[in-house]
Amino acid sequence: MDSINILLTLDDKYIPQLKVFLTSLRINNPGECFSLFLIHSGIKEEYLSEVKVWCSKHGWRFFSLLIDNELFAEAPSSKQYPKEMYYRLLAPYILPEDVMRIIYIDPDTLVINPLRPLWEMDMKGKPIAAASHTGITEIANGVNRIRLGTESDYYNSGVLLIDTERARIEIIPEDIFAYVKEHQNLILPDQDVLNALYGKRILPLADAIWNYDARNYSSYLLRSGGVQNEAWVMHNTAILHFCGKAKPWKKSYIYRFGLLYLHYEEIASREWEN
Amino acid sequence: MDSINILLTLDDKYIPQLKVFLTSLRINNPGECFSLFLIHSGIKEEYLSEVKVWCSKHGWRFFSLLIDNELFAEAPSSKQYPKEMYYRLLAPYILPEDVMRIIYIDPDTLVINPLRPLWEMDMKGKPIAAASHTGITEIANGVNRIRLGTESDYYNSGVLLIDTERARIEIIPEDIFAYVKEHQNLILPDQDVLNALYGKRILPLADAIWNYDARNYSSYLLRSGGVQNEAWVMHNTAILHFCGKAKPWKKSYIYRFGLLYLHYEEIASREWEN
Repeated sequence: MDSINILLTLDDKYIPQLKVFLTSLRINNPGECFSLFLIHSGIKEEYLSEVKVWCSKHGWRFFSLLIDNELFAEAPSSKQYPKEMYYRLLAPYILPEDVMRIIYIDPDTLVINPLRPLWEMDMKGKPIAAASHTGITEIANGVNRIRLGTESDYYNSGVLLIDTERARIEIIPEDIFAYVKEHQNLILPDQDVLNALYGKRILPLADAIWNYDARNYSSYLLRSGGVQNEAWVMHNTAILHFCGKAKPWKKSYIYRFGLLYLHYEEIASREWEN
Repeated sequence: MDSINILLTLDDKYIPQLKVFLTSLRINNPGECFSLFLIHSGIKEEYLSEVKVWCSKHGWRFFSLLIDNELFAEAPSSKQYPKEMYYRLLAPYILPEDVMRIIYIDPDTLVINPLRPLWEMDMKGKPIAAASHTGITEIANGVNRIRLGTESDYYNSGVLLIDTERARIEIIPEDIFAYVKEHQNLILPDQDVLNALYGKRILPLADAIWNYDARNYSSYLLRSGGVQNEAWVMHNTAILHFCGKAKPWKKSYIYRFGLLYLHYEEIASREWEN
């Protein structure tokens, strides 16, 4: 089997979550070899070294891609719109050219089932595949369509399957910079840009499988007519996304999948301390 | 480090749960080597072979101990009191003599943290260590004391740390057979015998750590003044015991740790199908 490319973009503050994520990815994808690409603007050397050692121990490849500030010299940026917001959409221009396909995943996630079906998905000529949480937030979906003037669903940018060759043709850095310059009222800048500029060119993914909103168990259950119960989620969902402000590594997280996150924190703390 | 001896007694029907148990034991005890002793009265050869292969793959030892019906020829037995009820208490007479200490665990459990602290516990000259679920069921505890005429807590026999040498001195098969013959009203025969005959010689274990009753999260939380929340359990509890009639592998299990069980079923199904 070919190795699966995973893309992450984060800073020092998210290193603990990165470890939990990687541990969950490893445990739930036995027999797979991953190539990990980490795009960042200066993660501490000791952290990078830890990740490198861990990956090598498990036979994975690790590529640290430090972004030169010059690269986004012309990109509009501010405290509200940091340069890091461009990393995920412009990754096709940052990654080595021989990376033909990659799965971007937010680090506030757990991988609890194999990713290979996503990795091998037919993208039907589209540059990006993504899931919308529309089933859950129909109202937010409508609001976002009006706000951004789009006709497609509002996609969540937390999990993206990217055809990097196709993306280099369709996603133009200058378009993105221009859009950001003209819109100073974006709420989630990178996600808004993804939807406003490329919404029509996104292949929809089943969110219950590839980008499950961990806050919304009851909605998934209700809308699926009782099918997507806990057993279904544990058996089918590959990526649990702890999106939103409430985070399972913080105190007083109330949603049910927080338990699973805490357990993976424990497993991770054992394997990363050695 | 020395290898940790684990004792299990079960029949064909519990093979699926055995696999889940072993998977959880492996994941949460990295770097440990286990010696698995399975006492049974005739598990199918194909199941034993599966367990043997799995153990050997992970560098563990596996001993299948098939009980000769003759061994308990004199033991009183009936449909209500099957001979299997004696296996756990009389294990010190069944195990190889060089097994000096062993941890018995029911197969309706998940191991979610390292067992080494239990394995290395000072038993203070006692033949058996066990936990009582007294904090949870004060009333049941009182009822059982009267019912069995004991003065000690009512211990749960689901997790036992056994000093086999000491046990061979203090636990006399004939005493057990005589007690069972005289008491035809036992509710949980082996657990009742353990308490009635050996209650005073049991070293108490902290149930929240070594034999957590998975049905009683709210009670643990309440009695600990809020300390034993989900994060505490995930960090400290080593053995989650799914005791009672409701089982997490059956439909409509309602307690919160069922989620974790379903997840381990999934991990187990991946590693046991290969």
